[in-house]
Amino acid sequence: MQDQLFRKLENLYPEMVEIRRFMHQHPELSFQEENTARYIAAFYEKLGVEVRTNVGGNGVVAKIHGGKPGKTVALRADFDALPIQDEKDVPYKSLVPGVMHACGHDGHTAALLVLAKVLHEARENLHGTYVMIHQHAEEYAPGGAITMIEDGCLEGVDVIFGTHLWATEPTGTVQYRIGPIMAAADRFEISIQGKGGHGAQPHKTKDAIVAGAQLVSNLQQIVSRRVDPVDSAVVTVGSFVAENAFNVIADKARLIGTVRTFNENTRDFIAGEIDKVVHGTCLATDCSYDYVYDKGYPAVVNHAAETEFLIDCASKVPEVTKIEESDLQMGGEDFAYYLQHVKGTFFFTGAKPESAESYPHHHPRFDIDEKAMLIAAKTLCSAALNYQTKKQHNHQETLA
Amino acid sequence: MQDQLFRKLENLYPEMVEIRRFMHQHPELSFQEENTARYIAAFYEKLGVEVRTNVGGNGVVAKIHGGKPGKTVALRADFDALPIQDEKDVPYKSLVPGVMHACGHDGHTAALLVLAKVLHEARENLHGTYVMIHQHAEEYAPGGAITMIEDGCLEGVDVIFGTHLWATEPTGTVQYRIGPIMAAADRFEISIQGKGGHGAQPHKTKDAIVAGAQLVSNLQQIVSRRVDPVDSAVVTVGSFVAENAFNVIADKARLIGTVRTFNENTRDFIAGEIDKVVHGTCLATDCSYDYVYDKGYPAVVNHAAETEFLIDCASKVPEVTKIEESDLQMGGEDFAYYLQHVKGTFFFTGAKPESAESYPHHHPRFDIDEKAMLIAAKTLCSAALNYQTKKQHNHQETLA
Amino acid sequence: MQDQLFRKLENLYPEMVEIRRFMHQHPELSFQEENTARYIAAFYEKLGVEVRTNVGGNGVVAKIHGGKPGKTVALRADFDALPIQDEKDVPYKSLVPGVMHACGHDGHTAALLVLAKVLHEARENLHGTYVMIHQHAEEYAPGGAITMIEDGCLEGVDVIFGTHLWATEPTGTVQYRIGPIMAAADRFEISIQGKGGHGAQPHKTKDAIVAGAQLVSNLQQIVSRRVDPVDSAVVTVGSFVAENAFNVIADKARLIGTVRTFNENTRDFIAGEIDKVVHGTCLATDCSYDYVYDKGYPAVVNHAAETEFLIDCASKVPEVTKIEESDLQMGGEDFAYYLQHVKGTFFFTGAKPESAESYPHHHPRFDIDEKAMLIAAKTLCSAALNYQTKKQHNHQETLA
Amino acid sequence: MQDQLFRKLENLYPEMVEIRRFMHQHPELSFQEENTARYIAAFYEKLGVEVRTNVGGNGVVAKIHGGKPGKTVALRADFDALPIQDEKDVPYKSLVPGVMHACGHDGHTAALLVLAKVLHEARENLHGTYVMIHQHAEEYAPGGAITMIEDGCLEGVDVIFGTHLWATEPTGTVQYRIGPIMAAADRFEISIQGKGGHGAQPHKTKDAIVAGAQLVSNLQQIVSRRVDPVDSAVVTVGSFVAENAFNVIADKARLIGTVRTFNENTRDFIAGEIDKVVHGTCLATDCSYDYVYDKGYPAVVNHAAETEFLIDCASKVPEVTKIEESDLQMGGEDFAYYLQHVKGTFFFTGAKPESAESYPHHHPRFDIDEKAMLIAAKTLCSAALNYQTKKQHNHQETLA
Repeated sequence: MQDQLFRKLENLYPEMVEIRRFMHQHPELSFQEENTARYIAAFYEKLGVEVRTNVGGNGVVAKIHGGKPGKTVALRADFDALPIQDEKDVPYKSLVPGVMHACGHDGHTAALLVLAKVLHEARENLHGTYVMIHQHAEEYAPGGAITMIEDGCLEGVDVIFGTHLWATEPTGTVQYRIGPIMAAADRFEISIQGKGGHGAQPHKTKDAIVAGAQLVSNLQQIVSRRVDPVDSAVVTVGSFVAENAFNVIADKARLIGTVRTFNENTRDFIAGEIDKVVHGTCLATDCSYDYVYDKGYPAVVNHAAETEFLIDCASKVPEVTKIEESDLQMGGEDFAYYLQHVKGTFFFTGAKPESAESYPHHHPRFDIDEKAMLIAAKTLCSAALNYQTKKQHNHQETLA
Repeated sequence: MQDQLFRKLENLYPEMVEIRRFMHQHPELSFQEENTARYIAAFYEKLGVEVRTNVGGNGVVAKIHGGKPGKTVALRADFDALPIQDEKDVPYKSLVPGVMHACGHDGHTAALLVLAKVLHEARENLHGTYVMIHQHAEEYAPGGAITMIEDGCLEGVDVIFGTHLWATEPTGTVQYRIGPIMAAADRFEISIQGKGGHGAQPHKTKDAIVAGAQLVSNLQQIVSRRVDPVDSAVVTVGSFVAENAFNVIADKARLIGTVRTFNENTRDFIAGEIDKVVHGTCLATDCSYDYVYDKGYPAVVNHAAETEFLIDCASKVPEVTKIEESDLQMGGEDFAYYLQHVKGTFFFTGAKPESAESYPHHHPRFDIDEKAMLIAAKTLCSAALNYQTKKQHNHQETLA
Repeated sequence: MQDQLFRKLENLYPEMVEIRRFMHQHPELSFQEENTARYIAAFYEKLGVEVRTNVGGNGVVAKIHGGKPGKTVALRADFDALPIQDEKDVPYKSLVPGVMHACGHDGHTAALLVLAKVLHEARENLHGTYVMIHQHAEEYAPGGAITMIEDGCLEGVDVIFGTHLWATEPTGTVQYRIGPIMAAADRFEISIQGKGGHGAQPHKTKDAIVAGAQLVSNLQQIVSRRVDPVDSAVVTVGSFVAENAFNVIADKARLIGTVRTFNENTRDFIAGEIDKVVHGTCLATDCSYDYVYDKGYPAVVNHAAETEFLIDCASKVPEVTKIEESDLQMGGEDFAYYLQHVKGTFFFTGAKPESAESYPHHHPRFDIDEKAMLIAAKTLCSAALNYQTKKQHNHQETLA
Repeated sequence: MQDQLFRKLENLYPEMVEIRRFMHQHPELSFQEENTARYIAAFYEKLGVEVRTNVGGNGVVAKIHGGKPGKTVALRADFDALPIQDEKDVPYKSLVPGVMHACGHDGHTAALLVLAKVLHEARENLHGTYVMIHQHAEEYAPGGAITMIEDGCLEGVDVIFGTHLWATEPTGTVQYRIGPIMAAADRFEISIQGKGGHGAQPHKTKDAIVAGAQLVSNLQQIVSRRVDPVDSAVVTVGSFVAENAFNVIADKARLIGTVRTFNENTRDFIAGEIDKVVHGTCLATDCSYDYVYDKGYPAVVNHAAETEFLIDCASKVPEVTKIEESDLQMGGEDFAYYLQHVKGTFFFTGAKPESAESYPHHHPRFDIDEKAMLIAAKTLCSAALNYQTKKQHNHQETLA
């Protein structure tokens, strides 16, 4: 059965490319993806697949019911684009000024649609149910996942798989990681309020720049001294603004930054430690402050058994030439929310273009090796099919 | 003679007010004071006083030759205005949008012009020569003094006196100080160049905000540890700008500030110490930098004997009710340059308006008590006359 | 064969306990373990096993030649004690004042000796060769491993296994880790030379305390900003001494600390970054300095295939109830050196006493659950035997 | 009269030298000056002068009543020595090991005793009363002045004069200063309590060295930003001790330092600011602390009219060749307390030895030019006599 579906996917590869390029030319920003959602829904309607639209926003969820009883497997693809001007010189270049599929979500969607078509065609012989989750708004917090879940997209789901085409790794590579794989990405903002005055009369002021400078130095300690060294965390002050004339003493300074963690306890701990450091530093400098900590997506934490299972499934895809553990990725992903509700795993599918030049995600010249879409589709296909017959995974049980 | 001149000044007080108010309505920015210069020159021409225009720019210098031999005494008044919108509600409010005599230079000029008229009328009976230095561009470095001196305004001058109407002290007060009275006011700018990057990947960057923050802290030491505690100095970072998105690591930070000193050695020392601290801090953080130190006016350093003399002269002005030592003033004044060439002293003439509200210099509602102009004129008159008969000042010699 | 040897080990468990308790009563400090070495050598001589003494110091190496061809497997146990006063109240308490087996090396040795006896008795039917490495001086750098290796203890060895009885984990637990498991532990010392003076005259001095304080703050950045957040590292200043009268300015400050890393590149990088930070900070404060970085043991980096293999072997030991990945341990171990020369792995064997109270390693009341010795012996036995028949480990190959 | 007394002083100069050298050979530490006190009292008893002993400790107060009515003038000399080993090679070298008159108090006493003898002999013709305050324990806080005052030494006193022989200025120089002349010298101690631990596990500790280092940096701001730049202040951390093994994290750090100020408000302000900075820094680092601020002597603040008067008196002493304003001296003096109760002034009498080498106060080779004793005696004599006929000092009134 798997081999048969793999062959069908191969045959439909040109359609996959066509869909991806169409989407690439018609990108839409997060939370504004109405045409894309309509396009996806139309695809399913044309096939005669049960489809629900406006799921938690612009989300689209399709369900394929196999002819035999089995488990319910969800597969997720996101479909929003970024506010970046496409600078590539290709025929399928974005037609929308300042908007671009610079992260590969077009490829995710194309792979999932074609896989759905193949599964739909073979449905009579399949066990279980297949839930195709087409998620809007992955790029922009609070993201689409959280509302799609609230709107029921995971109802009845036993397991979920998702992948990201990864343009920094060669095509043929699959990267997995048990436990945390992508970081929680939060934002904080600290406004220090001192008392301004003439640059020649510091004693009549409370110098917000001196306070802010101390604060930046003091914040370094959180990572260097307070977080377990075998844990990973980043506290970055990315912006420090206190703009004045040279002969003035600053009345306020505004610091904005980000915190990255892989562990919910560490995340909350750091949010509290920043508060403590800001509070103490401002007391020491007689300034007042506002401190806001905005949580972004939580860390993506893969389940162990499902990840081990995915490794096996990936090893059954002929084009997969390398399966390796991923480094921890400091970027964020709202796939994290699905894994808080059901078991599953998120993995990277190498998609580095073969051309001499390749560009990182979010770059104006970003592109993918389209053949990676086929590999992603096959790996997800393998996971979906084999999950129906998955046994207790003994080796893992011994270990965990 | 002095009493006679004092009476004439009293009689001409209405003209003094008229001149001041005309100037107040027609202010001109530093280096653009062409009409004001013409107005001053015309005043002298009408009297028949020898006058030289375009002295080192818009400067005007008039000379009154006494009928008897004696010393050459220079008196200086500045005449530029500020880029401030006049917000007072008075009949003589500025007619020029965004430009205002918010520092009292109009009063300085009115007092000096009327004093010149009085001296001119009495010239037959006077000893010596009186040089009226009407200086443009005091508010804006490099200032007018330096070029007026280069253009010869101090040629033959034995001594110089100058005053500033001082709206923070009551009318009737004269403030003097031997040695430094106003600070050297310099500007520095430090641009730190690190290496930017993603906020989640500090190890691939050189964080310019962290470097800048350390730098601000490290700079505190210059005043706290390296300057003689009985000397006075200020090092202020007034502006710190590294503006970025929250999830970015800053590639550069721009710090701008001011240094105030009363002593040329301390001034040069601090300029060098900042360099040392920037250099070391940037080495420690692997950043590069640009450091520019722009000297503004030097400190105004009053000569001892001439200041003691001025105290005596002020005590002869009936309206002077209080003569006291001034605090060190951290602001700058290019009168400093004259005192580097000839002996003399610079003093403050109290000019606080009697109204309930009074505003500091450079405030949009700044005003002076006009009666202070008469006191300034009399004190300068007293100094000019008595200097002709000044003897060796024995008490001072013993002390110094 | 394995089951047979396991039974023999069980039968000899009382001897294991006896050996361990004898050693516990007669501990010797690192590099002074002459009696212990003699005791070990005598054990082998009595059995008639080939034994070499004074290997790289007090090291002892015994070789058991199986009757059939095969691979050469080394097993290592360390045997030095610590300068700690035994405060336990047990019959086998240390008889040497101030010296104590407070880290379980007595148990390592007892397990290995009895395992050697069992292997020796079964030698006719065994494949390969078994090298029993009894290492002196693990507790005190530079340690015994490095000189034992220089003295040939690894000659002909194909693989090495070692374990540490781990009193913080329950008996029955085996902890493994692929890649780094224990940290490189280095020491640094920084002497800052300023210029002392009277506490009231900072401008005549170079304040070594202010320089040292800045240095400590600046060093925080190395971990917080310069080391990859998914790597692990610690930079600790453990000692800061600048002792003076209150009214003096410090001429020198002495800082001593430690660096912990798991990766040789990170280790060298940090040593260099400290130098950079010290250099820049001292330039900024006009002080001079000495900086010494002494490398201790490198990180223990387990080989992947051998670790996977050990997991399998441990799963064959009936008393092993839990096999789990170890956290990264920030402590050091000179087993690290063996793994730089031959393949192998180092693992932890849970040995937490069942009593209500248990104490950490190096505590005056430290003790082990002696039954863990049997588990350690069986696990090492399993590894030694099975390694003879180990095949290419396919799963691992796919992954790595 | 004055000339007559000056001649008598000249004639008694050999006795002055003799007294000084005897004291120099028999120095006694602060609060232990019993023999010195007896020696002084015996001197007065022999003359038949009214003398009171054990005044507020070892203090001695003699009173000389003039034959005519007048004011009561106090003159003060201190008489304690220092815990320093005399390393000079002179016949009058200290006979007490480890104790030395290394600050010139022997000279102060000799001058005052001989002056008392001269005044006593001339008493019939003198106006007023002369109180000779021989103070113990100037070198060691809380000092003798405070208890002598409590014990009545200033009762009825109209004015007080005191001088310090000043070995850094040439003989013939008198240095005065209106207002503050010597600093308040205080001591503070800060103990930071963190939580110790293993150097490899910072997250389980609260690092007292990192907290202390931040604190030192943060304290720099008090002088650099919070004290009026035209005021003078020093905050020095002279001792920073957190001594541990290299692989430990410090549980505590002890910082000791001094604060110097010239102004009681600034003094109290700084004591409070240190508290604020310690409090905030410890909050930010989660440490606790103890902070103790011990006030030493307050600043010596000379009264204006009495200082102007002293200048006149000094100018009447033929040997005085230079009268100049003193720099602010950062050292402390408990003469400060007298000036809080009565008007008066404290001045420096140049006493630099003519030899090629001269050493600073408190140096093991310190010595004075003994001729300065005569100048000190004459200046005090002139002040005492002329104060009886002192008129309202008009010039000063105009100024103040």
